[in-house]
Amino acid sequence: MAGNTFGTQLRLTTWGESHGPAVGGVLDGFPAGIALDLSAVDAELDRRKPRGAAGTPRREADAVEWLSGMHPEPDAQGRRLSLGTPIAFLVRNSNTQSEDYAALADVFRPGHADATYQTKYGIRDVRGGGRSSARETVARVIAGALAKQLLGPEVTVRAAVERAAGISASDPTTWDWSLREQSGVGCPDLVASAAIEEEVARRRGEGDSAGGVVYLEVLGVPAGWGEPVFDKLHAVLGHALLSINAVKGVEFGDGFAGADLRGSQHNDAPDADGVVRQNREGGITGGISNGRPITARIAFKPVSSIALSQNALNADGEVQNLSISGRHDALVVPRALPIVEAMAALTLADAMLAQRIQSHQL
Amino acid sequence: MAGNTFGTQLRLTTWGESHGPAVGGVLDGFPAGIALDLSAVDAELDRRKPRGAAGTPRREADAVEWLSGMHPEPDAQGRRLSLGTPIAFLVRNSNTQSEDYAALADVFRPGHADATYQTKYGIRDVRGGGRSSARETVARVIAGALAKQLLGPEVTVRAAVERAAGISASDPTTWDWSLREQSGVGCPDLVASAAIEEEVARRRGEGDSAGGVVYLEVLGVPAGWGEPVFDKLHAVLGHALLSINAVKGVEFGDGFAGADLRGSQHNDAPDADGVVRQNREGGITGGISNGRPITARIAFKPVSSIALSQNALNADGEVQNLSISGRHDALVVPRALPIVEAMAALTLADAMLAQRIQSHQL
Amino acid sequence: MAGNTFGTQLRLTTWGESHGPAVGGVLDGFPAGIALDLSAVDAELDRRKPRGAAGTPRREADAVEWLSGMHPEPDAQGRRLSLGTPIAFLVRNSNTQSEDYAALADVFRPGHADATYQTKYGIRDVRGGGRSSARETVARVIAGALAKQLLGPEVTVRAAVERAAGISASDPTTWDWSLREQSGVGCPDLVASAAIEEEVARRRGEGDSAGGVVYLEVLGVPAGWGEPVFDKLHAVLGHALLSINAVKGVEFGDGFAGADLRGSQHNDAPDADGVVRQNREGGITGGISNGRPITARIAFKPVSSIALSQNALNADGEVQNLSISGRHDALVVPRALPIVEAMAALTLADAMLAQRIQSHQL
Amino acid sequence: MAGNTFGTQLRLTTWGESHGPAVGGVLDGFPAGIALDLSAVDAELDRRKPRGAAGTPRREADAVEWLSGMHPEPDAQGRRLSLGTPIAFLVRNSNTQSEDYAALADVFRPGHADATYQTKYGIRDVRGGGRSSARETVARVIAGALAKQLLGPEVTVRAAVERAAGISASDPTTWDWSLREQSGVGCPDLVASAAIEEEVARRRGEGDSAGGVVYLEVLGVPAGWGEPVFDKLHAVLGHALLSINAVKGVEFGDGFAGADLRGSQHNDAPDADGVVRQNREGGITGGISNGRPITARIAFKPVSSIALSQNALNADGEVQNLSISGRHDALVVPRALPIVEAMAALTLADAMLAQRIQSHQL
Repeated sequence: MAGNTFGTQLRLTTWGESHGPAVGGVLDGFPAGIALDLSAVDAELDRRKPRGAAGTPRREADAVEWLSGMHPEPDAQGRRLSLGTPIAFLVRNSNTQSEDYAALADVFRPGHADATYQTKYGIRDVRGGGRSSARETVARVIAGALAKQLLGPEVTVRAAVERAAGISASDPTTWDWSLREQSGVGCPDLVASAAIEEEVARRRGEGDSAGGVVYLEVLGVPAGWGEPVFDKLHAVLGHALLSINAVKGVEFGDGFAGADLRGSQHNDAPDADGVVRQNREGGITGGISNGRPITARIAFKPVSSIALSQNALNADGEVQNLSISGRHDALVVPRALPIVEAMAALTLADAMLAQRIQSHQL
Repeated sequence: MAGNTFGTQLRLTTWGESHGPAVGGVLDGFPAGIALDLSAVDAELDRRKPRGAAGTPRREADAVEWLSGMHPEPDAQGRRLSLGTPIAFLVRNSNTQSEDYAALADVFRPGHADATYQTKYGIRDVRGGGRSSARETVARVIAGALAKQLLGPEVTVRAAVERAAGISASDPTTWDWSLREQSGVGCPDLVASAAIEEEVARRRGEGDSAGGVVYLEVLGVPAGWGEPVFDKLHAVLGHALLSINAVKGVEFGDGFAGADLRGSQHNDAPDADGVVRQNREGGITGGISNGRPITARIAFKPVSSIALSQNALNADGEVQNLSISGRHDALVVPRALPIVEAMAALTLADAMLAQRIQSHQL
Repeated sequence: MAGNTFGTQLRLTTWGESHGPAVGGVLDGFPAGIALDLSAVDAELDRRKPRGAAGTPRREADAVEWLSGMHPEPDAQGRRLSLGTPIAFLVRNSNTQSEDYAALADVFRPGHADATYQTKYGIRDVRGGGRSSARETVARVIAGALAKQLLGPEVTVRAAVERAAGISASDPTTWDWSLREQSGVGCPDLVASAAIEEEVARRRGEGDSAGGVVYLEVLGVPAGWGEPVFDKLHAVLGHALLSINAVKGVEFGDGFAGADLRGSQHNDAPDADGVVRQNREGGITGGISNGRPITARIAFKPVSSIALSQNALNADGEVQNLSISGRHDALVVPRALPIVEAMAALTLADAMLAQRIQSHQL
Repeated sequence: MAGNTFGTQLRLTTWGESHGPAVGGVLDGFPAGIALDLSAVDAELDRRKPRGAAGTPRREADAVEWLSGMHPEPDAQGRRLSLGTPIAFLVRNSNTQSEDYAALADVFRPGHADATYQTKYGIRDVRGGGRSSARETVARVIAGALAKQLLGPEVTVRAAVERAAGISASDPTTWDWSLREQSGVGCPDLVASAAIEEEVARRRGEGDSAGGVVYLEVLGVPAGWGEPVFDKLHAVLGHALLSINAVKGVEFGDGFAGADLRGSQHNDAPDADGVVRQNREGGITGGISNGRPITARIAFKPVSSIALSQNALNADGEVQNLSISGRHDALVVPRALPIVEAMAALTLADAMLAQRIQSHQL
């Protein structure tokens, strides 16, 4: 169980190195008879592509090749029906400049997995970070887009940038989410968005980089999803989100701030009319969805690849100067939004399927 | 896969309701030939017991009954050798006052899993919270104590209270861990400890409760543990820690605070002598241990059971007043320390075993 | 994943050594709200007990202690409702004569797992065969009895002895199954039954033993159960049945004999009225149940423990004479019937739950 | 867990429909640093191709496209080093005559999975049998060829035809395996081979088909592989072998015939010199390899696709005449040999990796 598979009922296995022939995945356990809009998958991949000044100049076409799991004949709306068999897909790696990495063959970039992979495996594909590259998340976004369609229109999974480069947006509960697409950094608070863009540009100009916090919200999940004890819904969601490159923390509902509150404040008790309006729990109680919006925050460390000179160890154990000149993002959280949504959608679709076993009995 | 099993190579399955006959577990995949000191398990269980004014008056003997997996003859030091077969154990639930819960049969306590379990399963054991009670963590502590012995003396897993009831301790890197046992709340900063005790006592007196943040540190893990992509070491650790009752957030290394830094600040680059001293990553890079201490923070929400009157929904969907008079902790983080350590030890022992497959090849 | 867990949706984990304190198991994934008749479990355990002259003199009370997973209050019929939480249980090992095994501590019994366990683990519990003893199947029978109740009255799982000690019964499709209980060896053909008893008595008298073939039939399984490719229904059933002690072969439908037929003979084509009456496939086509009875045959090797003197290796690698004087069956297939049924019921209940995920979509 | 993944430590996930764009797989858990000879994989695929008069006229190039998991630079011998990351591969489906299947869109072929897939999923890809086609086994053969290289030269996995069309070869222990390649049907007994070819040709001429029995032998497995209780080595092997299309039975060692023996005959006791020469157990005792050759027999039903007219049900539930005119084998067991070996190799490599966890402790 070497870590390249996620999920229990709905299982995604991904494969591929950053500069290998392709990256791809297999999504098994997807029920039969779901009409799939493949253009919606392309739209999610577009959201993952670099954009604006903050993004890497590496631009990939990211055309999905669908290999199995769907009926050959599209329906009247151009959708393909799932067969219940594994959905396999790949995306070619076309725009690889592996020569950029020749200089990195014998040096371990700080903040990257170069040294740890070398220690773990005794060998690695140095080009583009190999398997440890965020290029792998292409497969997650594709599978996540299918998971969203499995969840159906009742469930909305959406993420946005709440904080980046040390600049916070307004309270997410006040956001107009339609403004997210107008932001160059995926932040619906356009004032904060502009400030973030400015600060990231400054850091990029200085050869440096930034991190940030993503806010995730899932609407429409009914009460009852999630398994008790070890596979609490937020524990599995946390696993999913922490598995995204550069994520260093995750919290649900009020999270760390909520730890300071009193029980009388934190308990999401009903109002006098019987409606529970407070949502400090973030939509999950005792590991099971409670019917209110699921909310989470995900912390991304600043991008590790920087042009600024830094110390680095090489394969001989010596310190050398390193200035990374490849094509890199100065801020990844905007591109991470569809990845965050994908991992949340995969987790929730999995929980939905698991609950079918129980729901028969009620 | 109903959520009661944790781990891949080393698998813990727990069972039991809070007021059922017993709670227990099965630990499978434990290698043969490990000499087990069972008194060390008892010591861990003692740490989980309520203590001081903050703890519930429910006091259990928590005597472990060992059912399988160990050679019948102890060795000269009184230790039992593992057989490689499943290690099964149970602890009787003796001090149950189920009559306390008669009044709760038809009301859903805010902050508890009462309503979500009822929705999910259509039935529940109302006594003591049934399966959703933290009583289940007895089995985790037992298994975690065995996992610590599997990890061996080179690895130290330790947790302490860094913040509670809104009061922070000093920087954990400055702690004298030997003071932890002198603190009534598991906080090595005894000044903060006293302040926390005072504030918790105040809240308890007001019928209210508190939450807090636990600091976890694991020393001695070599580089190379953890699987890439979905089962990154911190993703699995996060899963483990978020599965503990009342946990709402987890972060590794600098976590959320690190998201504000620049790449040049956050990257754990070597000093001029080739030694990496900075540890903002928290000992894990790219999902694989890097040889430095693994550090994490875990946020616990305030205790949900409070004597203060609050609104609650009953089985008929009506709002009623609820004042919870049972035996409850006003602050659980001190008792959570061995649970946090147990989940970390189980995760790390699992990763250690997984790496044996790779390490043969190097 | 050390081999002590069976199943995917419905997962049984067993534990315990033959002469340890107890044997037991945890059955996870059992849906909530099923009314469980625990006396039916006792009846299955009774079928597993030794009977008649062929059985071992070791007689256990085999009282089940139910530890979790059921509502504390029985319903009007005395049944307990499942909670959806793990069902844990144990049975004490009371009638252990471990001193019988003192002489076996340093010798490896031919046909037993003594030597292979010693090689694999470097240590073993020599008393009664430890974990490799068929005593472990007590837990399977208990869990299987619950699985039968989950399958419900529409599904009948039944096994009988078709051949033993070289003597065959009549064609199973002609059996009057109600006669099975009149047979001392679980064979509905009472003429064959008497001949088998006689031959087994002869072998026992000579210090020798016998094996046999069990016929398994499952009625009432609807079409559509089983997963394609690797987890074909008969592949998982085969896994389940081959995991029973002493089983060396399994076949479905016409099995080995069917390999000689022509396609035109073997194909279960419909008759002119559209009804498929032939069942050479044994109820499974392409790995998925086809709605006809599932049929299988399971081959058990002769009992390995014999009083006759045989060569055996000891821990020093020397050959010695061995005559096994403990309490042993001369023929185990009659006692194996509830075990075969239990493994089939667990497999089918698992497949039934898995199909709920698909069936929602149709 | 929808059945398209096999293995625990070494996990193969396959995907693809018979007439879809491609079939392929992902092999995860393959250790790093293994030098892979990819031409040996091609050689295994060649063995799976149809040959002689018995084979289908559908001939595929079966060129493997390697997508990930290997170092980009071959070593001096042209071998590629495994990276420890998932090994992904695909083979295009080029020679598809899907128009052959237009007539089959609404009829369920007897012996095929048409009806059961339709019932299970409510939808299927009718072309070439879709996912239920033996075309899927291309991925197994590829992965199995890699597993053989992981097992190393000490372990030999080989299969041959022992019986087909009702004609038996000589005792496998007397075979000269080098003659297997001279046989048109993979049978080292060339006299039997000729008779089989003749009988299959006769049946083919009559529009009919044949089945057979494959003998599997694995040499060089050390004692100690396999997990106790549910994942006994032969139980997992049985699962693997029964998952191959058209397999209806499997036995180990003396199997069904051994059930007639006495314990004194069946027990593989040492000779006077301490060497165990008898191998009625088939190399596995108590579910764990004992160091002697692992032997098994696998029964394949006769090919279901026949030109002879037979009754069949259509989608409207009516009976119609069906004569299958597509390209089909009259006997599949010769082509099944590399598939049988592949599944055995995958199972044994998995067991080898699992045992690394234990072997550290001895």
